[in-house]
Amino acid sequence: MTISRRALLIGLGAAGGAGTMFAAMNVLGLAPGEQRSDFEAPRQSDFTLRGKAAAKVIVLGAGVAGLACAYELGKAGYDCTILEAADRIGGRNLTLRGGDQVTELSGAKQAVAFGEGVYFNAGPARIASWMVTLDYCRELGVPIELFVNSNASAYVYTSGMKAPVRYRTARADMQGHLAELLAKVTSQGALDENVQESDRQLLLDFLRQYGDLGEKTTYEDSERRGFATYPGMEAGAPLPPPPTLSELLGYQLGPALTFDLAADQAMPMFQPVGGMDRIVTALADVVGRDRIRLSSKVTKVANLPDGVEVAHSGGVLRADYCIATLPPHLMALVPGNLEAPVVAALRSATAFSAGKLGLEYGRRWWEQEDRIYGGITETDLDIGRIWYPSEGFHRPRGLVVGYYNFAADADAYAGLKHPERLEKALAQGERVHGPKYRKDLLSSISMTWSNRPHINGAWAYMPSAGLLKQPAGRVYFAGDWLTHLVAWQAGAFESARHVVASLHQRVLKEESE
Amino acid sequence: MTISRRALLIGLGAAGGAGTMFAAMNVLGLAPGEQRSDFEAPRQSDFTLRGKAAAKVIVLGAGVAGLACAYELGKAGYDCTILEAADRIGGRNLTLRGGDQVTELSGAKQAVAFGEGVYFNAGPARIASWMVTLDYCRELGVPIELFVNSNASAYVYTSGMKAPVRYRTARADMQGHLAELLAKVTSQGALDENVQESDRQLLLDFLRQYGDLGEKTTYEDSERRGFATYPGMEAGAPLPPPPTLSELLGYQLGPALTFDLAADQAMPMFQPVGGMDRIVTALADVVGRDRIRLSSKVTKVANLPDGVEVAHSGGVLRADYCIATLPPHLMALVPGNLEAPVVAALRSATAFSAGKLGLEYGRRWWEQEDRIYGGITETDLDIGRIWYPSEGFHRPRGLVVGYYNFAADADAYAGLKHPERLEKALAQGERVHGPKYRKDLLSSISMTWSNRPHINGAWAYMPSAGLLKQPAGRVYFAGDWLTHLVAWQAGAFESARHVVASLHQRVLKEESE
Repeated sequence: MTISRRALLIGLGAAGGAGTMFAAMNVLGLAPGEQRSDFEAPRQSDFTLRGKAAAKVIVLGAGVAGLACAYELGKAGYDCTILEAADRIGGRNLTLRGGDQVTELSGAKQAVAFGEGVYFNAGPARIASWMVTLDYCRELGVPIELFVNSNASAYVYTSGMKAPVRYRTARADMQGHLAELLAKVTSQGALDENVQESDRQLLLDFLRQYGDLGEKTTYEDSERRGFATYPGMEAGAPLPPPPTLSELLGYQLGPALTFDLAADQAMPMFQPVGGMDRIVTALADVVGRDRIRLSSKVTKVANLPDGVEVAHSGGVLRADYCIATLPPHLMALVPGNLEAPVVAALRSATAFSAGKLGLEYGRRWWEQEDRIYGGITETDLDIGRIWYPSEGFHRPRGLVVGYYNFAADADAYAGLKHPERLEKALAQGERVHGPKYRKDLLSSISMTWSNRPHINGAWAYMPSAGLLKQPAGRVYFAGDWLTHLVAWQAGAFESARHVVASLHQRVLKEESE
Repeated sequence: MTISRRALLIGLGAAGGAGTMFAAMNVLGLAPGEQRSDFEAPRQSDFTLRGKAAAKVIVLGAGVAGLACAYELGKAGYDCTILEAADRIGGRNLTLRGGDQVTELSGAKQAVAFGEGVYFNAGPARIASWMVTLDYCRELGVPIELFVNSNASAYVYTSGMKAPVRYRTARADMQGHLAELLAKVTSQGALDENVQESDRQLLLDFLRQYGDLGEKTTYEDSERRGFATYPGMEAGAPLPPPPTLSELLGYQLGPALTFDLAADQAMPMFQPVGGMDRIVTALADVVGRDRIRLSSKVTKVANLPDGVEVAHSGGVLRADYCIATLPPHLMALVPGNLEAPVVAALRSATAFSAGKLGLEYGRRWWEQEDRIYGGITETDLDIGRIWYPSEGFHRPRGLVVGYYNFAADADAYAGLKHPERLEKALAQGERVHGPKYRKDLLSSISMTWSNRPHINGAWAYMPSAGLLKQPAGRVYFAGDWLTHLVAWQAGAFESARHVVASLHQRVLKEESE
């Protein structure tokens, strides 16, 4: 099918020109840039003809999934109540500012002491351009700005290296060496079986550009590497010569040099101006703050013959439907009458650990001295990576993410007290940035998602989520963990749309019966 | 020397750890992130002890070089007067807004009809993070924001292709095929002479990651390519399968896939918030508007025994020194008594052509439909490339650069009237974006730098600029054309700093004699 489509398009392109081809591609759903937009929000008018009220819905959790469900249902007049166990909305969409307090499951507390205008996206912090999250920013009027996910001037550092190297340098060296190798074997005839003769010159031409190879088709040096002193009145002063391929391979740069090629990591990426929680505050505003009950922990969820009953720390509610957006491993523990296979599916979730450290500095030394404006230094140390802020350029203060690590690394930091986490991370960061990494530090906050009350994990993987994509009686489930966008807010939004669409369809059907 | 430095550092790193190594690298000027900052601006205090007035300087040209000279000299109290032939400041740093008018050398006029908040950087439009231009933004309080120079979601399109392809797709395909080829010959033993045995497995491991190769170490498909429908509740729907290496090579993608690796093109890049001319207006404000005489075309520059005489369309001025920042090919035509070798050097300049077309749309279709937020679609068409705006995301209007082309392509468009340029560019853009490229177009402006009065070229190359880096008597020359940053504002700033430093040194010396 795919082949014949392509053949058709090629034929159309040749025969009818660009216009014909584009028209055909649109019909086939192949026009470049085409986005899925099959979601239609419920509307008031869906009910008006029937003269009935929309249903009453209890939403468990005021994270992105829960808020998005209430927002979309609210468009058609559904009567939604959101129960949130924590004393703030947003769930993992958490932006910390001066005055906030972070309490861990252990009871350990940290006070956030950031200065005016400084914030820390402790949860999600970036949005890819194809994600539905951007559509919500647009619809809700949340201004967005660019997020630097990859920066040629940031470093890569692995423990096998003598010193950190700029991303641009490592990339140029690796690409140069690979191109040289391939050019060499092409000229030696080793590719004769794999590359037809007429393509060999084209390949060599491409490799020369790809690797910035010299006249002898070897990689000697390249301005792509950057300079010890950049050009100005005088020509740039070169860096020390490139490492050998053998040295480079020993550095194990695979992850650092390829992470930004992933579909969900490629540049450019985006963030809301002023903090990621602008999204959840905008959602809460349109949902209506009076519909959200904070500090209301769910203690029971039961299907009734004609509705649902939800008990929580402040009382008992009844409604027509319930949408549960709690993390699956926590939802599995909520008493009630969900059937065993449903509970088993919820229990199949594995919570994943991730940690982040926010370092507030009184001087943006990474801009002034390192010329790093946003982006990420990838390492193989236990800190994982260092993030530089994509906003507030040239201002007096700024927030660096001193670690963003996963799994065992995150667990190791989780086991420490905050001052120990800080010390450990500073020692690692010093290996990248030298002693200045400790200077001008004003305050710090560590977020340990596995220790976060009512969340207990950074995100969750589901070996068997299939059943939970359907309602369990009158209880629906929503969250990124049910989608192919685990750990992304976009997953929460997509899941919310799915639940809203199927719940609304059911309500319309029942109403009309 | 370089080798012994490295050996020393490796030794130090092994012996003394990160701290010792960084200290040594600083001494050797090798610490990563070290930037040249050897410029010291003249200060009032340089003169106060001597009880004399700073010198009087006539600056020719109120572009970036001229304004920067007057700004830096002004810090020490120099009495600067800037003569500008045009009726506005900025030179090639030109941001067009509604109400502006563009007049070409031929007399052809275009009125800029952009709506509120829409602007077009018709000249320089991006700044690399290592460039001194960012330091001036910081010093002058000009807020900066990110500029998307490369976008995985933008397209690449060459006339050999049937349809445009996303940058991310073309990059993944090329990288996949190259990695597969290299993995194949590695396994076949063809690299045994070039890659030592112990490195071969490391190389294969890297290639697997680099090309996102499958289990058989072949390139079949990759999520890096993007999707026909992106993942959500369901897995992503794949694009049609990758082209063969032979097809890909035929597309001649070298320039499109490598331009953003250059030291001056790598992401992230930057722009002033609100338009590039924020830099020149900030400079003019600190210089003092009263020191800038617009519509004052220089007609003579002469060295006198103890100063300079400059005639212009509004009169004759005398001063101690003159700094000429006119384009060299125009300065060569100014009468006066500059010596023959100096005039010959100025005449050696070759002006280079570049053109830009600004397209104002009433709907940001590239964001809504193509999910392109900023960045560049590279083509081999005569339009060169299409730029999407890096600011104003999600607003109603936006400005697309419909062409940014050079040399013969720019000359061909220069020979046309604006409506013909527009039509030609729309027809080409349609090959990338289809019929929607003509819809919602509100207004347009074309800039032809070779036709720009008092500038006559986009930038200039100098085969023999050496002589002009020295003063010709009391006349100094400044401009990007004298530096290794031709066509960049950073070149103008670097050149200004060089001239200011050498003029100030001379003045201090003369004053003290």
